[in-house]
Amino acid sequence: MTPPARGDHEARRRDVSEAVWRVLAARGFGGLTLRAVAAELGASTGLLTHYFPNKRALVAHALDVLDRQAAERRRPATEEAATARGLAVLRAALLDVLPLDGAGAAGNRIRVGSWDAALTDPGLTAEHAERYRRARRRMTELCAEAQELGELPADRPAADLAALAQSFALGLVVQALFAPAEFPPERQRALLDGFLAALVTGERPDPVGS
Amino acid sequence: MTPPARGDHEARRRDVSEAVWRVLAARGFGGLTLRAVAAELGASTGLLTHYFPNKRALVAHALDVLDRQAAERRRPATEEAATARGLAVLRAALLDVLPLDGAGAAGNRIRVGSWDAALTDPGLTAEHAERYRRARRRMTELCAEAQELGELPADRPAADLAALAQSFALGLVVQALFAPAEFPPERQRALLDGFLAALVTGERPDPVGS
Repeated sequence: MTPPARGDHEARRRDVSEAVWRVLAARGFGGLTLRAVAAELGASTGLLTHYFPNKRALVAHALDVLDRQAAERRRPATEEAATARGLAVLRAALLDVLPLDGAGAAGNRIRVGSWDAALTDPGLTAEHAERYRRARRRMTELCAEAQELGELPADRPAADLAALAQSFALGLVVQALFAPAEFPPERQRALLDGFLAALVTGERPDPVGS
Repeated sequence: MTPPARGDHEARRRDVSEAVWRVLAARGFGGLTLRAVAAELGASTGLLTHYFPNKRALVAHALDVLDRQAAERRRPATEEAATARGLAVLRAALLDVLPLDGAGAAGNRIRVGSWDAALTDPGLTAEHAERYRRARRRMTELCAEAQELGELPADRPAADLAALAQSFALGLVVQALFAPAEFPPERQRALLDGFLAALVTGERPDPVGS
């Protein structure tokens, strides 16, 4: 790798980005250092700092890539999915979070791995908190929609239903990463549906009807 | 710190253990290196290896300390707690997991931080998987007991109820660590009770009565 020419900057940044990814997959966030990424690129640490001045910038970049990947996965593939509402969309959003295939497992491994660095760096903590806050806000909207549609009980704040759903999904991710044989995709889906079924019937004072 | 005399070994190991703890609290698992712990002790890295030969041993030790702390918290404080059964014990076990006070938050911060290293080291992955398997087995027994007592619906495997409960608790831990202001202890408790209430009434085909 040579120093960046004006127009090459983005292409080189992509090379660096891929090297960051390979280091994370092999060593986790604890092994993500400027030195390790430079070695992966066959470049000097000094050269790498043209793109990322320090470890924190590498970590922030890796998290941005994860967010972009997640956003791409969220795009509805069919017209039917684009017009779905309420509980069906909530279920799809939760399924998107789970490690149901190789890419989902790899992304989640890196995301879960980021929590160590994120909990010790105040700036990263704030970014992570905001990321999860946005996700909860979106889920709160979906839960409110499901309540309006009579799909979820109306006797509990939508924000609480959303917090329950996000807690459940995040915890299932962690368990499935550590014990993939006990949590194959079909069991993850079944547990999610069991969780949603409990929310649907749980504590509803009267049948809502529709 | 001087090289260990025969009888001093355990006391020195305790000093090292406390230094490990301080490094973890300040820098997370990503910052837990032999060099950092040696600096915290005012000792050489070579001397430290009398107690812990490598980083992996430091990490494994930190996790053992967390387990011991968790086991101590689990001991029932009152005779009433010692004779409790079923849902009440499940609820107490889940409350023990949550970051409801400073010690719970510090321990959870370190435990969550350990997942990065644990997901990239096959030996640690196996140990973590076994740790969570044991916890699920214990919760499965409690769920089965609650089913026998008619406190939880009998139409779903106790192992699935336990997986739901553990997922929910782990995910709530993560959310509460990142957004403590949104998840103060009383909201964590209320969400846990809302979750349990949903399990209790969810999908039960007929009232069980007691």
